[in-house]
Amino acid sequence: MTENVLSNYVGGQWVESRSSEARQVVNPATAEVLARVPLSADEEVRDAIAAAGAAYPAWRRTPPPVRARCLYKLKDRIARDFEALARLLVREHGKTIAEARGEMQRTLECVEVACGVPSLMMGYNAEDIAPGIDEYALVQPLGAFACIAPFNFPAMVPFWFLPFAVACGDTYVVKPSPETPCSQVKLFELMDEVGFQPGVVNLVHGGAQAAQVLMTSPDVAGVSFVGSSKIARVVYRTCAGTGMRVQAQGAAKNYLLVMPDADLDTAVPNIIGSVYGCTGQRCLAGAVVLACEQTCEGLTQRLLEAANALRVGYGLDEDTDMGPLESQAKMENVLNWIERGITEGARLLLDGRAIKVEGFEDGYFVGPMAFDGVSAEMAIANEEVFGPVMAILRVRDFEEALDIIAANPYGNASSIYTSSGSHAREFRYRVECGNIGINVGVAAPVPYFPFGGMKESFFGDLHGQGQDAIRFFTDRKVVIERWP
Amino acid sequence: MTENVLSNYVGGQWVESRSSEARQVVNPATAEVLARVPLSADEEVRDAIAAAGAAYPAWRRTPPPVRARCLYKLKDRIARDFEALARLLVREHGKTIAEARGEMQRTLECVEVACGVPSLMMGYNAEDIAPGIDEYALVQPLGAFACIAPFNFPAMVPFWFLPFAVACGDTYVVKPSPETPCSQVKLFELMDEVGFQPGVVNLVHGGAQAAQVLMTSPDVAGVSFVGSSKIARVVYRTCAGTGMRVQAQGAAKNYLLVMPDADLDTAVPNIIGSVYGCTGQRCLAGAVVLACEQTCEGLTQRLLEAANALRVGYGLDEDTDMGPLESQAKMENVLNWIERGITEGARLLLDGRAIKVEGFEDGYFVGPMAFDGVSAEMAIANEEVFGPVMAILRVRDFEEALDIIAANPYGNASSIYTSSGSHAREFRYRVECGNIGINVGVAAPVPYFPFGGMKESFFGDLHGQGQDAIRFFTDRKVVIERWP
Amino acid sequence: MTENVLSNYVGGQWVESRSSEARQVVNPATAEVLARVPLSADEEVRDAIAAAGAAYPAWRRTPPPVRARCLYKLKDRIARDFEALARLLVREHGKTIAEARGEMQRTLECVEVACGVPSLMMGYNAEDIAPGIDEYALVQPLGAFACIAPFNFPAMVPFWFLPFAVACGDTYVVKPSPETPCSQVKLFELMDEVGFQPGVVNLVHGGAQAAQVLMTSPDVAGVSFVGSSKIARVVYRTCAGTGMRVQAQGAAKNYLLVMPDADLDTAVPNIIGSVYGCTGQRCLAGAVVLACEQTCEGLTQRLLEAANALRVGYGLDEDTDMGPLESQAKMENVLNWIERGITEGARLLLDGRAIKVEGFEDGYFVGPMAFDGVSAEMAIANEEVFGPVMAILRVRDFEEALDIIAANPYGNASSIYTSSGSHAREFRYRVECGNIGINVGVAAPVPYFPFGGMKESFFGDLHGQGQDAIRFFTDRKVVIERWP
Amino acid sequence: MTENVLSNYVGGQWVESRSSEARQVVNPATAEVLARVPLSADEEVRDAIAAAGAAYPAWRRTPPPVRARCLYKLKDRIARDFEALARLLVREHGKTIAEARGEMQRTLECVEVACGVPSLMMGYNAEDIAPGIDEYALVQPLGAFACIAPFNFPAMVPFWFLPFAVACGDTYVVKPSPETPCSQVKLFELMDEVGFQPGVVNLVHGGAQAAQVLMTSPDVAGVSFVGSSKIARVVYRTCAGTGMRVQAQGAAKNYLLVMPDADLDTAVPNIIGSVYGCTGQRCLAGAVVLACEQTCEGLTQRLLEAANALRVGYGLDEDTDMGPLESQAKMENVLNWIERGITEGARLLLDGRAIKVEGFEDGYFVGPMAFDGVSAEMAIANEEVFGPVMAILRVRDFEEALDIIAANPYGNASSIYTSSGSHAREFRYRVECGNIGINVGVAAPVPYFPFGGMKESFFGDLHGQGQDAIRFFTDRKVVIERWP
Repeated sequence: MTENVLSNYVGGQWVESRSSEARQVVNPATAEVLARVPLSADEEVRDAIAAAGAAYPAWRRTPPPVRARCLYKLKDRIARDFEALARLLVREHGKTIAEARGEMQRTLECVEVACGVPSLMMGYNAEDIAPGIDEYALVQPLGAFACIAPFNFPAMVPFWFLPFAVACGDTYVVKPSPETPCSQVKLFELMDEVGFQPGVVNLVHGGAQAAQVLMTSPDVAGVSFVGSSKIARVVYRTCAGTGMRVQAQGAAKNYLLVMPDADLDTAVPNIIGSVYGCTGQRCLAGAVVLACEQTCEGLTQRLLEAANALRVGYGLDEDTDMGPLESQAKMENVLNWIERGITEGARLLLDGRAIKVEGFEDGYFVGPMAFDGVSAEMAIANEEVFGPVMAILRVRDFEEALDIIAANPYGNASSIYTSSGSHAREFRYRVECGNIGINVGVAAPVPYFPFGGMKESFFGDLHGQGQDAIRFFTDRKVVIERWP
Repeated sequence: MTENVLSNYVGGQWVESRSSEARQVVNPATAEVLARVPLSADEEVRDAIAAAGAAYPAWRRTPPPVRARCLYKLKDRIARDFEALARLLVREHGKTIAEARGEMQRTLECVEVACGVPSLMMGYNAEDIAPGIDEYALVQPLGAFACIAPFNFPAMVPFWFLPFAVACGDTYVVKPSPETPCSQVKLFELMDEVGFQPGVVNLVHGGAQAAQVLMTSPDVAGVSFVGSSKIARVVYRTCAGTGMRVQAQGAAKNYLLVMPDADLDTAVPNIIGSVYGCTGQRCLAGAVVLACEQTCEGLTQRLLEAANALRVGYGLDEDTDMGPLESQAKMENVLNWIERGITEGARLLLDGRAIKVEGFEDGYFVGPMAFDGVSAEMAIANEEVFGPVMAILRVRDFEEALDIIAANPYGNASSIYTSSGSHAREFRYRVECGNIGINVGVAAPVPYFPFGGMKESFFGDLHGQGQDAIRFFTDRKVVIERWP
Repeated sequence: MTENVLSNYVGGQWVESRSSEARQVVNPATAEVLARVPLSADEEVRDAIAAAGAAYPAWRRTPPPVRARCLYKLKDRIARDFEALARLLVREHGKTIAEARGEMQRTLECVEVACGVPSLMMGYNAEDIAPGIDEYALVQPLGAFACIAPFNFPAMVPFWFLPFAVACGDTYVVKPSPETPCSQVKLFELMDEVGFQPGVVNLVHGGAQAAQVLMTSPDVAGVSFVGSSKIARVVYRTCAGTGMRVQAQGAAKNYLLVMPDADLDTAVPNIIGSVYGCTGQRCLAGAVVLACEQTCEGLTQRLLEAANALRVGYGLDEDTDMGPLESQAKMENVLNWIERGITEGARLLLDGRAIKVEGFEDGYFVGPMAFDGVSAEMAIANEEVFGPVMAILRVRDFEEALDIIAANPYGNASSIYTSSGSHAREFRYRVECGNIGINVGVAAPVPYFPFGGMKESFFGDLHGQGQDAIRFFTDRKVVIERWP
Repeated sequence: MTENVLSNYVGGQWVESRSSEARQVVNPATAEVLARVPLSADEEVRDAIAAAGAAYPAWRRTPPPVRARCLYKLKDRIARDFEALARLLVREHGKTIAEARGEMQRTLECVEVACGVPSLMMGYNAEDIAPGIDEYALVQPLGAFACIAPFNFPAMVPFWFLPFAVACGDTYVVKPSPETPCSQVKLFELMDEVGFQPGVVNLVHGGAQAAQVLMTSPDVAGVSFVGSSKIARVVYRTCAGTGMRVQAQGAAKNYLLVMPDADLDTAVPNIIGSVYGCTGQRCLAGAVVLACEQTCEGLTQRLLEAANALRVGYGLDEDTDMGPLESQAKMENVLNWIERGITEGARLLLDGRAIKVEGFEDGYFVGPMAFDGVSAEMAIANEEVFGPVMAILRVRDFEEALDIIAANPYGNASSIYTSSGSHAREFRYRVECGNIGINVGVAAPVPYFPFGGMKESFFGDLHGQGQDAIRFFTDRKVVIERWP
């Protein structure tokens, strides 16, 4: 990572891009330029696909336990360079070092789960479907897959897919976000060290055009995407138009319902973590607190106090609770949302717009912000802000809360804070969100489970991570066998 | 089925279509008109979707074992009316009564498998993903699904999906092929009798426009399609464009490789059954016999004799081995393919074009046909004919045969005839087809298994039938739970 | 059931026992003799085993879907004769008609689950455990199994095993309790009607000696037992001594913990049903109510009122809430327990000893009984009574309650009544019982799940019902395959 | 391993035995004493059980992924000390260094599989078994388990169990064979280094008396045993008598059927490896070659030549093909078997009794031996020899071979050498052995699969390794939940 210009990793080699187009990768706390990232030419993307395709036949024939051993090694390398990776994440993205460690931990865990592939990708079989005739489903890989990654979890998101894909015998191309490509480059350095067969894993930098090449290539077996719902829709349609497999995760507007019987001592810090963690830039961030009337005053007070106490600063300071937004454009977008909320009539109880972080005057910082008096019709209650903004929406009761959640087009995550088994059951049963938290504000599935998503938050049928990932990256080939 | 005009079945009621557009359903052996089938207006399709949507909340809350009990009843009714259904199939489609019984048997079996839904749709759970925190995946239904069905297995194909969907708690809309809608109507009469909650299952007649309404409705959770590859591609893209789930099964060109060590006594009748069964109108029909040089002469001779011995006639005659093609257009298409094969240089060893079936002079009959001297480049070796035409293509050895199969764009089914465990293993390992037969010419998975398909023969990731169907019709909602 | 002397069913034939020993089957409400049941000679038991052994090879080769079809038919027959079976149950056992219907419903459901065997008994497979070497586990049956059944659920308990065993391809011998053999005879009449291959299912009457023959026969692949813990221990040791598989379910002492936040409106009738249902003669019966101090007075009052309101009478009267005990000996045993409880110092708040049921003066009736002031050390709090006796034991709090449950040697079932998700989680996490009820007093697993049991309540590792049953009745044969 | 006297490992501490009884561990190639191993007093065994019991509650509450991380570390340590472990194995047991590496590799793989425990030990769940009532099976550990290990795979066999048990949250006591305890001591040094919670893993040295204490302790949840069938029967009965879980793997007599269509170029070395590998001291060793008449002469000739070419010597010499027997007693037992074979009338074609290995005159060496003219009735064809002795038994055909295998009381493993898919299918379908090789002479399941065993070769229902191990070490607790 000492060189300024990031390279692609294709066919087991670091390759300098021939493209003249590039972007700057900027540390959002300092506005310092960390690297230049090329926007690879179409031909370069096709090279990566071709390398993955060429590596497939031999990799597919490599026994699953042997493939898993590459992942064991990768796991060890990630553990070895854990802290360096976390610090790099802070610098390219702005999140706090604690958040970066959390991201790296989850990245590591995805590799751990994929290490279990020999158990996870087993087929199934039946003797005597008719006398003397046996039938079995073989679980086999499919070819070269690709991931189009978002900026917000630059290390982790590709690892919802890549370890599972290569464990299954597929080969892979990652296109990181051009905003935050550095940690993925570092991870590929580790993969290079581990010694995957050349072409099994490939990295190609680029933007929308590179994504387009991946999505329209007849040589790509499938694409995994994480980003906005608008783009997710396009990805879903485009990849399907090419005829490939596709899973596309979109945006979110996550509700946190606080029932009168919630234990506020644990709920309040948990909500604060959900709303302001990663500066609100995660698809599992709590966005709207649905506060039941009986509990509302005390809750609001405590939330504001806790939000107010958050230390905004450079992520590499261990004391920092909240880092900057990832870019100037993202900061401006958040500020626009604040304007819009005010215009809509919400009361801005906590205004972090004017924050200054000493020594980091060029950073894209905003402080924690909170609206009260939000109503269900406001855009601020319905659209993704992707910033540290809490909307408090008072509801009469459980049923009104569920109606509001049901009316929202997104279905990524929702949480309830309660001590009632009954309300917890109804909530998980009825709320159409893929990830449900019960007294848990960030319902992030451990990677032994799929990462859920419904409605406008997910397009496809098989999710990332867990058994879903294994199925997405394999096919079930059915064999009927008779021996005369 | 005594009435002339077929009705839609919507919301638990038989509803006469208000559409003025209609088609005739014709018995292809007699050219007699069996019924008029309406091409429902968009609004009528939307009514069916709406009925399914309205039925969903209560049906979803019906316990799976109770839902299964509706299917047990349906199974009993199908068994009761088995012969009547089979005879109806013969009349609307032309297949032989034995083939029709086979189709009904498989239809029944799909219901049987779906009866096991309480075991099949279980979620999974883990305690203590972190101390005191549990995580579990709930398997829940999604809403109203639809099937766009082909003409060739009018009873069975919708049942690759419908029983699984309703077992899972989804509701359903079937749009049968307007060419062969009658047996599906009869099956809906049985479902009506069984007493599903109104709106759980719906039937709407129509053609491409009705399909379009289904594929573009935001109220449809997913579509299952079976048809040509060209249309399957469109379906896949269109449904994805709407944002729904989709699985689209396309065409096929299935190769039957006969190794020198094959047991011809069993292989020859099996091949004949594969090629000429259902008059070649099935996606698992053997189309090209890859004959290894050493075995070729004897094999060709025996195949021709066996093909020549097939009795062509009305399907309701128990003696008939092969019925007519399903329509005049389909007959003409097959005849065109014969012309094309001849033009390409293949030798037509068996010419069934001039066949006359006494008493059925108006029927769309052709006799069994066979080309020898087919080479890998000819269209007749590569494109789906969907008729009783065998192409014999001589290959040097196993490897050449696998190269030819690999070069074909379709990946539905392929079979090998051999006594060698080694060749069988290599074949199933390497051939990119979803359904592999080893000494089995029609590799039709029992419905406990998915119905495979690869390359241009399938678009999507989860197949019909078996555990794949359960996953297609459900989502995995992840819950993370902590109790402070 | 019109004949007086019950026959064995061996090798597809009803066979009169040659034994001179016999017992009377008595209707416990009327003391009327229903039938004479022979205590079959050792040779007759061996005949049944031999018949099962002889039937095994062909039955094992019968395709699972075909085997399942026998079960579908059996299911239909049970449904057809449902009411007659339920009434017979009442007459031979004494339970109420509603309870008998419940038992028959569960019996039916066991058959339903076993119908799903083609999905449930699949093996699993992996390609390329080393290059070119494949490995798979075939799931295959084992031979002739047997069940030694208890008196209390004469129809159902053998069906926790038999349908699963025969679905898996094993053959079976049932030895019913000689106290209540009649409904099982009737079920075998239905199995005879269904047309299982001769010898697949066999019924042999007898007592301890017949059981001994089954347990020590080298031709029995495994035994399933349900009864007392003392005998279960002997069964476990004896069968293991023979070298066979064995699962032995024993006695129970089930605690019902009522937390202060329980909803008493639903809890009270649920507790009453648990304690007094089946006159307390079931292994899932609630025996000790652990009443938290805060809630104790009100709860006790309401429980007594509800118990007091139960109508004791003949089970065939639809109005009856509680029938007699199953035999005079069992009645005397219960009365002894009452004496013992009084001697130990518990207060008998509800005394049903002197009850008279008009018109049924010879029946083995007792009324509902309840002790208060029970302490953890008393035998009445620790040992199984198997009668309609509630012991109320006051506890300080949740932790004391869990300590009491932990100290008990049995581990069959326990329930908690609470509205707290937290207490529910701790309870299910920590209580060492196989069946846990959360606001459910009779935690009887639906047969898609195993019927749990821990500590002295179960000996073995695989339970009855569900996936456990499938595994108990099959072996996993591992094949490693290479083709040079 | 530098100290002379081996210690127990109890509660996280190396503890010197207070027992005065001890045995010598001898290098069988040199007769040099490697160590003294104590035969621990009953009290010491109970200490180990108590330590495991005390560690259980906290270990059980440790999240599965965290438990798995201990195993990941252990895996890394084993990999680090791989060669030292292998060399130690050679010294304590006599096997060749290549065989020792194979054993260590498999030991390592067992740990790898257990690392996947968070996926493998998931429970399952169903919503709405009745309206509003949910049911789920929690998979939970049970307590302290123990292994009584054999001498022949001193490192590996305890690892068929221990990693799975501790992964599942159980704690463990290993009693190694007192003949070969050293490598297990070394593995416990690695476990000590890894930092399991004290008491999670324990090692106690001893012989039959120590085993007796383990098998009769009420504080042991279950025992896994591998050894002779005679002792396995006793273990099964004894543990069952205590009421605990038990799986007991016994002896073997494995047949290798060579069909006329076998590829002898691959079969011959494979058979030689199976028969003479580990000097015949493994339960998967091929013992009887069933040679089809047509192929017999050539096969016998080639087998003898290949056997004759084996270099017998010290296992630490890389050139050695076959090491000594493990002890003088075992050598004498083998020599007695040779006498017996001769007496029975078999022809000793290859006589390794007089072999001398230069420089290792005190070692327990015999050379490869082979009998021809063996008939099915001879003891040499039916009983386990556990030495490098091949019995060649000529059979007419496939059916006679299967009859001979069926008549043998053991059911551990059998292999067929053939190119015929048909014979392979019949063989795996019909042969009652738990481990089947198709062109594979040592059918050792990779640890993702259970290690099979039938008839006298296995007592119990769940096997070691794979999903069976997970089930053996956990219970399925069923919860039924309703929220009023």
